[in-house]
Amino acid sequence: MSIPTSITQILKAGPIHFGPFIVTTQVFHLTPHTYALVNLKPILPGHVLISPRRVVPRVTDLTPTETSDLFLTVRRVARMIERVYGASSLNIAIQDGADAGQSVPHVHAHVIPRKRGDLDDRGGMDAVYEMLDGEEGDLRDVFSKDGDEGRRRRRFPRVDNDERKPRSAEEMEGEAWRLAGEMEKESDD
Amino acid sequence: MSIPTSITQILKAGPIHFGPFIVTTQVFHLTPHTYALVNLKPILPGHVLISPRRVVPRVTDLTPTETSDLFLTVRRVARMIERVYGASSLNIAIQDGADAGQSVPHVHAHVIPRKRGDLDDRGGMDAVYEMLDGEEGDLRDVFSKDGDEGRRRRRFPRVDNDERKPRSAEEMEGEAWRLAGEMEKESDD
Repeated sequence: MSIPTSITQILKAGPIHFGPFIVTTQVFHLTPHTYALVNLKPILPGHVLISPRRVVPRVTDLTPTETSDLFLTVRRVARMIERVYGASSLNIAIQDGADAGQSVPHVHAHVIPRKRGDLDDRGGMDAVYEMLDGEEGDLRDVFSKDGDEGRRRRRFPRVDNDERKPRSAEEMEGEAWRLAGEMEKESDD
Repeated sequence: MSIPTSITQILKAGPIHFGPFIVTTQVFHLTPHTYALVNLKPILPGHVLISPRRVVPRVTDLTPTETSDLFLTVRRVARMIERVYGASSLNIAIQDGADAGQSVPHVHAHVIPRKRGDLDDRGGMDAVYEMLDGEEGDLRDVFSKDGDEGRRRRRFPRVDNDERKPRSAEEMEGEAWRLAGEMEKESDD
């Protein structure tokens, strides 16, 4: 697989920050104010995050221009993800602040592709939400020392969370390259 | 309480549709492409919905103009709700398609104000998500005959759902007037 043009541009534009972390090699799409990245521990295959390039914790911290760019990107990435992962629906969710479950203080929209019955054996349709904290907490566990804080905040029983293994940097980079190629096929609209 | 100017404009612009339902008297904010409405059965006080005026089921069905207008409105409404309800965080969530839990086939973003420990006695921080289907299903139960479909789709045990009573039209209209007045205080940015 040759390196997609957009990945070359992303690497040139880097480093790209997600809260305190540098995530440049996980990024598969970049716009003037927004980027999209693959996940360390996706809840379901194709679970990705979309963030403003500026590190701000809350949606209200975004300018109107950043807000439009973020959600136009959510819409385009969501369309690509649904197509590439053969999904029929999507969960789009933002934990806007610590008391809503946000663990990395940087605005990010989760996009999670869904199929009929995909979580029947893991607690049912809405089990996806209980797992939402997981990958952020896990990212924290992996990249920093304050994993206890992440665990403390997870008061609700986690469904299947411990079975989700962190992926390797190589695996994430491979998916980022693949999704970058797929984004290049999407129309600008 | 005198009728807010924006409520007069909303009533003139109506009828406003939420899927198959007419919700004009629940609407507290209207923009060229978007409206915001109070809930029949809020999960928490201040839980509101933001929808495109055009009845389309999926985020990808929105035009770029509608997408920007929807999320700029989400941001402004969210800021007002956080202020008025004294919240510290917000959940923002879209169930984009039936297999993601959407029961009314019309795009709508949930905005739910959150405070520290607000759901500790109802299952913890993430219990909010399990309740998300509730008010939509309940709306369906109340306004249409296919409540069984709504119930069938709720496979995950509902936390506290049966204790949430549908509110009266008068109560919802009163809240819509109050929030319309509060929205008039927000800056356009």
